Amino acid sequence: MRISPLLTDLYELTMLAGYLEEGMADKQAVFDLYFRTNPFEGGYAIFAGLAPALDCLEQLRFTEEEIGYLASLHLFKPRFLEYLRTFRFCGTVVAPLEGSVVFANEPLLTVSGTLTEVQLVETVLLNSINFQTLVATKAARICSAAGDGEVIEFGLRRAQGPDGGLSASRAACIGGAKGTSNVLAGMDFGLPVRGTHAHSWVQSFPDELTAFRAYADAFPDSSVLLVDTYDTLTSGLPNAITVARELHARGHNLRGIRLDSGDLAYLSREARRMLDAAGFPEVRILASNELDEWVIESIRNEGGRVDIYGVGTKLATASGPGGVALGGVYKLVAIDGQPKMKRTSDLAKATLPGAKRVLRAVGPEGSYLQDLVCLEDDAVTGGTTVYDPTNPLRHTTLPPCRLVDLRQVVMERGQRLLAEEPIETMAERCRRDLALLPQGCRRFVNPHRYKVSISPQLKALRCRLIEAMNAGRRQA
Amino acid sequence: MRISPLLTDLYELTMLAGYLEEGMADKQAVFDLYFRTNPFEGGYAIFAGLAPALDCLEQLRFTEEEIGYLASLHLFKPRFLEYLRTFRFCGTVVAPLEGSVVFANEPLLTVSGTLTEVQLVETVLLNSINFQTLVATKAARICSAAGDGEVIEFGLRRAQGPDGGLSASRAACIGGAKGTSNVLAGMDFGLPVRGTHAHSWVQSFPDELTAFRAYADAFPDSSVLLVDTYDTLTSGLPNAITVARELHARGHNLRGIRLDSGDLAYLSREARRMLDAAGFPEVRILASNELDEWVIESIRNEGGRVDIYGVGTKLATASGPGGVALGGVYKLVAIDGQPKMKRTSDLAKATLPGAKRVLRAVGPEGSYLQDLVCLEDDAVTGGTTVYDPTNPLRHTTLPPCRLVDLRQVVMERGQRLLAEEPIETMAERCRRDLALLPQGCRRFVNPHRYKVSISPQLKALRCRLIEAMNAGRRQA
Repeated sequence: MRISPLLTDLYELTMLAGYLEEGMADKQAVFDLYFRTNPFEGGYAIFAGLAPALDCLEQLRFTEEEIGYLASLHLFKPRFLEYLRTFRFCGTVVAPLEGSVVFANEPLLTVSGTLTEVQLVETVLLNSINFQTLVATKAARICSAAGDGEVIEFGLRRAQGPDGGLSASRAACIGGAKGTSNVLAGMDFGLPVRGTHAHSWVQSFPDELTAFRAYADAFPDSSVLLVDTYDTLTSGLPNAITVARELHARGHNLRGIRLDSGDLAYLSREARRMLDAAGFPEVRILASNELDEWVIESIRNEGGRVDIYGVGTKLATASGPGGVALGGVYKLVAIDGQPKMKRTSDLAKATLPGAKRVLRAVGPEGSYLQDLVCLEDDAVTGGTTVYDPTNPLRHTTLPPCRLVDLRQVVMERGQRLLAEEPIETMAERCRRDLALLPQGCRRFVNPHRYKVSISPQLKALRCRLIEAMNAGRRQA
Repeated sequence: MRISPLLTDLYELTMLAGYLEEGMADKQAVFDLYFRTNPFEGGYAIFAGLAPALDCLEQLRFTEEEIGYLASLHLFKPRFLEYLRTFRFCGTVVAPLEGSVVFANEPLLTVSGTLTEVQLVETVLLNSINFQTLVATKAARICSAAGDGEVIEFGLRRAQGPDGGLSASRAACIGGAKGTSNVLAGMDFGLPVRGTHAHSWVQSFPDELTAFRAYADAFPDSSVLLVDTYDTLTSGLPNAITVARELHARGHNLRGIRLDSGDLAYLSREARRMLDAAGFPEVRILASNELDEWVIESIRNEGGRVDIYGVGTKLATASGPGGVALGGVYKLVAIDGQPKMKRTSDLAKATLPGAKRVLRAVGPEGSYLQDLVCLEDDAVTGGTTVYDPTNPLRHTTLPPCRLVDLRQVVMERGQRLLAEEPIETMAERCRRDLALLPQGCRRFVNPHRYKVSISPQLKALRCRLIEAMNAGRRQA
């Protein structure tokens, strides 16, 4: 699907016009995209949204209609509109692969090219990476709470707009959901699609048993019957068991029952007991109704017997403390080969200047020890002292380890280098990465803080730039 | 933009296939779309998202590619896929106009037609109405906090996907925002677009003053300068004032300055003082940085001097307590002319059966007194006793009033009756409606609860249906 290049903030376009006016359009610039706090007050994030972002960069073209609209704003000169006519993104992008575990304060995307091309794409990159990374992280947390239970994404009707739903389904499956109710996401991204039926199905028939029989007739091997329209234990489950028996007699199997209200821990235990007693231990129990990682954890802690969790609103909108939006930012770190940094009154929020690498220190067993942000030509090994970027008083010695680049060049001079990956490959990467993390990082409450340090050379460069800025201000 | 009919939950399609199988596809059915709690723990909601929803209904067609995908799922019979080939939405939709003030527990959309057509559109209607109503309501709250200050929507980069951004910009302007940074939303919906520049602009120049001069050269009458890249009061504002003087000498005017960090109440007071002292009382102050209705209220309570609020994340994602998602539901209320209701163990959540009208009781001055849900042929007047739908022990007597239909037929047998309205007309309706509400409804904390009652006839129908269901269960 084409995304218009006008899906951007107006200021990107006014800045472009200004750079062109000043003769600065072709200066070489480098931007980093990163976030400052792990979402959901958690210990990690799952990187997602890269492929759709690269699609946007590849397809970036202004149509005549779009240029005509910009002309109608009476803000831009004809020369700038002419410039946009042939505008293409020909920059280079370095990024982790989708499904990778990433952390606050390390560059995720680094985008380099002309000042205009790397500035223009800010909004669309942030839009894609911020939202999908947030949802993939939420999905990973929910799947971790669900243990051996399956998680299915059911959020389209409460998602933030049509694409809020589509992107959410994609990202949820990267983070570990096994399928989605969203049929278009199934088609567009090759995701498994799943579903049950609505209360309205039951109400459209004279009674519940007739409704269940009709649904099982239509889908004799894939029916999941919603049992709470009238009363779960005295009506829904007995009727579902009757239908399971009838299906069985005809050589078919009821796939499952769905609980959508009430005390899910209690009802799932009772449902399991009734189904087992009736001879249907293979009929699965699906639960839904405002689920998230906390509710699922509590259902399991109480011995609930849910096999499949249908998670809607709170997954598709990534809600919960520290959720809803990932505060990703996109900051200039070099121009014309000169490292740049932004410092505000809060030094801890100062950016990390220069073009950089992100290395992951991997222990002898393959486990992840810590991440390290360093300059491109830094030589770092075990034994090096490395520093907390937000507080240089905190430092640590890098243990003996293998240092692996977290990122790779995924687009070079506008050409995509990354082959299309199936979502399942990204989901597998996510599972593997999470298993290699220190266990405490996956905890929901007060998670272990995985270290992201900076190299001595990067720290020194930052200090030099801060001193130079202070000196400049003393002179001014 | 075409929205695929596959942007739906799988169960809508399996139910359709089941209805076709059972010979029930052409039964006449009526569904109500409504929500059960006002968003943001507030006293009202602003209805939005109708026009995009009607677009979807009008354009509903299955392409060969989409039908091919459904065939590949091995769930559906050829007869059903054939049926989808010529499937159109030919139903009737009753709804309020966008920008109207609406409340929990009153039907917003009522959709009638064949069981299949009204069932299939459930997901896409909920997706559009839920999200846009939520954002329009958030915008109305934020604008109410801003008083005479202007609100501009700046949320695209943190929005939930590309369309999360587009829909949010549209709905924000219905709720009262005066513009958006989202250029595509400007083009698609005719909204005013606005912007400033980024920190990267300032960093791309040798110093801040050079950067400000360059921007003002490019946009001599529309520059809003971001003054917090180095230090707001000692660097940004003095440099902005220098540029304001230089522009003035050349017959131009600096439009404004933008504060994006720090203590916005304090900094805006200081900025106003410095700008006024320099002879620039007309230069406007724009503030941004994680604003919402509460932060804006606090800035104004402390005497802040902000003229324009740039509100991003919390507006575009409609976050805050009771936000993020509106829990709109879509429930069957009649089939084959017979009223239907869903009752679960919680009787207060039982639906309101039958095809209904929503009347607004309007006082002599035009002010809104309460809303009333009644059956289509009910005769209701002042003096009638009306009932709380969630608790019949609460009842009240309708005062002398004019009863006005809240809704109108906006689509009849698939034909749209509603002419396209500019967003500004909807925004004007929102302003007018809010002014006619009891004042306490607009309060953020413990708002006045505007009454939505049901008529005696509707209450009687509901009691009859509950009794019939209880009798049925006793027999079973």
